[in-house]
Amino acid sequence: MKNGTTQIELIENGSVTSPAGFLAAGVVAGFKKSKKSDFAMLYSQYDCNAAGTFTSNLFPAAPVQLCRKRIEERVPIRAVIVNSGVANACTGKEGYDNSCKSAQMAADILNLKEENILTASTGRIGVQLPMDILAGGIKMASSALSVNGGFDAAQAIMTTDTKPKSVAVKFQINGKTVTVGGMTKGAGMIAPGMIVCRPHATMLCFITTDAVVSADDLTDFLNASVDQSFNRITVDNDMSTNDTCVVLANGASGVDVKAGTQEADLFCEALNTVTAALARAMVMDGEGVTKFVAVEVKGAANDHDARICARAIANSMLCKTAWFGCDPNWGRVLAAAGYSGAKFDPDLVNMDYDEMAVIRGGMDAGTPEKMLCEVIKRREFTIHLNLGAGDAEHTIWTSDISHDYVTINADYHT
Amino acid sequence: MKNGTTQIELIENGSVTSPAGFLAAGVVAGFKKSKKSDFAMLYSQYDCNAAGTFTSNLFPAAPVQLCRKRIEERVPIRAVIVNSGVANACTGKEGYDNSCKSAQMAADILNLKEENILTASTGRIGVQLPMDILAGGIKMASSALSVNGGFDAAQAIMTTDTKPKSVAVKFQINGKTVTVGGMTKGAGMIAPGMIVCRPHATMLCFITTDAVVSADDLTDFLNASVDQSFNRITVDNDMSTNDTCVVLANGASGVDVKAGTQEADLFCEALNTVTAALARAMVMDGEGVTKFVAVEVKGAANDHDARICARAIANSMLCKTAWFGCDPNWGRVLAAAGYSGAKFDPDLVNMDYDEMAVIRGGMDAGTPEKMLCEVIKRREFTIHLNLGAGDAEHTIWTSDISHDYVTINADYHT
Repeated sequence: MKNGTTQIELIENGSVTSPAGFLAAGVVAGFKKSKKSDFAMLYSQYDCNAAGTFTSNLFPAAPVQLCRKRIEERVPIRAVIVNSGVANACTGKEGYDNSCKSAQMAADILNLKEENILTASTGRIGVQLPMDILAGGIKMASSALSVNGGFDAAQAIMTTDTKPKSVAVKFQINGKTVTVGGMTKGAGMIAPGMIVCRPHATMLCFITTDAVVSADDLTDFLNASVDQSFNRITVDNDMSTNDTCVVLANGASGVDVKAGTQEADLFCEALNTVTAALARAMVMDGEGVTKFVAVEVKGAANDHDARICARAIANSMLCKTAWFGCDPNWGRVLAAAGYSGAKFDPDLVNMDYDEMAVIRGGMDAGTPEKMLCEVIKRREFTIHLNLGAGDAEHTIWTSDISHDYVTINADYHT
Repeated sequence: MKNGTTQIELIENGSVTSPAGFLAAGVVAGFKKSKKSDFAMLYSQYDCNAAGTFTSNLFPAAPVQLCRKRIEERVPIRAVIVNSGVANACTGKEGYDNSCKSAQMAADILNLKEENILTASTGRIGVQLPMDILAGGIKMASSALSVNGGFDAAQAIMTTDTKPKSVAVKFQINGKTVTVGGMTKGAGMIAPGMIVCRPHATMLCFITTDAVVSADDLTDFLNASVDQSFNRITVDNDMSTNDTCVVLANGASGVDVKAGTQEADLFCEALNTVTAALARAMVMDGEGVTKFVAVEVKGAANDHDARICARAIANSMLCKTAWFGCDPNWGRVLAAAGYSGAKFDPDLVNMDYDEMAVIRGGMDAGTPEKMLCEVIKRREFTIHLNLGAGDAEHTIWTSDISHDYVTINADYHT
């Protein structure tokens, strides 16, 4: 996204059905007592190569186990079914069998093989899937599939999210158009780290593209992209059993995207635009979130130090409550840096809140508190922390913690 | 505390002034806008050997630096002065000089040397000590010193604590009585780990005893005791710049306590009783706390795994909000164990809430949710988690996270 961004074009009201050959639907199956839509189906008219990143939780949900198997086996994927309301995690053999059965039900209706279907679930842990509700959902969704169904699908995968999160971008090459679309849900249990760090969200993300990409390249592109987006966000530092990010490439554009080519550069830029937009949207729509805070650590001795320092600040309850209270309380930020485990000399530390100097040489820079309050009152701001210990840097996107977070999670019974 | 507890006797209304030769006072110096008492002085009529454990934060407050120096130099200690309202952290050379000056002021009034005085501070980071207020506090407190001043002192060191926390115990040996007393403040920034793990509290703890103990033995006894008490608690996983736990032994009982003797066994038992009682009280009185939860992990592959697993659960925002909401949501507990980094086979995991079976072999044990709710509604309960991976175990004492926690920390301006 650094250069050439002009070549990547945002599609208005874009979604997973923006790329050619994808249909989607979202319906009220009945998993949620609220009678809100709770079952989504994503369908490709052509075989897809697929790549995925998943939770590293030792209790992976049944659908996560199923998706991992399919993606490792490189079987062509044609559809994804997603229910919200029940996580199908910690449900043992019965849970896994149910996930397979639901894929079979979808395959029967869509005239596909069971192995062509991916499944995903989000909701309460430890509850078995209600198979009759699922059967109804599959039936309804399959007959509702539409090129305009991307928005409905994004709505159906929500749990405590307040709004659906969809995006799509496109680029032209040699007179042809390649499109990348995506949808995600997040809200709570958000601190994914699906490849290089630990994931903690029930975040589900589904990305579609009509590019022609091999499964191997797609895997590499996705890993790099997730590492720069979803793996850099945190809401509550709690990692889910269900985190899933899947990308499907159906080749409908006819444009070959091979690693190392100009096409690949453009494709990765498009993919990164989609994942970054969805990751930001996920933080913004985190449970009870009122503020989006970028914690940008520079001058760390090494990558590990930059990462643990940024994460300590981003996850500090005292920082997050201070942000909620519009309190510039920089002592809490320094304290978090100081206990993070990162090595640095406190006397060399500088910090800014957006454009305002906060700390110089480990001490108060003298900016009046009132001016710092102006920054902390913003809906979005960046904490620039320079440890003065080296050249490594890391950025985490985080949020405040509000009363609503407590309310939502103290009362959450799907 | 396992055996022979009968020999350790709790003293009713015991405090830091219960051991012979200790006086204390707590006064309103004016650090706090609330006009509550905010300055404490602890005084020994005899020279004390001292030991201390302190924050490992890279931004140690000025008084922490001063205490470390004195205790490392093994100078005899006669008094401790403590202010609440201002942390004197991130205050540079001026802050350190102010801490030394305040020790000098106390020494002048008490007819001691500067080096005989320890200082401690708690409150807002980044603010310089108001030296005139401090001078007034020292003057007032020195003339208020009393053998009955232990309660006042415990009150004066409070910040967001709702009640003072004091305790004292005694034991008899060869016709002589040895007493150990202590006071602490905690409430927020609570997750100390002052020796072996990372500390995160502004917790201040002062322990007194009239035993005759060498500084070396006292250091060993304190380290072992803190490791079993303060280092096992967490409220918000935020480590302070000011964490301090100091023990003073003035020898007034005439009872020699040397490592390896029966006296030492009794003394350690008494010390452990005091630190455990204060640590529990600190969690109970944590900011906004409505529940005390012991997270007891057993069957871990090794000590490290037991520790990180217990800490992950104890610090999980989703577990803590569920407990606040009296929701037995065991999925969140397993999810936290699953992302903790501990290695185990999920199919071998068992869990109980107090006397109720929750999980057997990684799955729902079938106890009705209503019965689990009964446990979670208790003011205190224990989560027994067995990972089935070995013999290591670790227990953490933690709390829920409530609306009041958010309110207190979003609005905290001393």
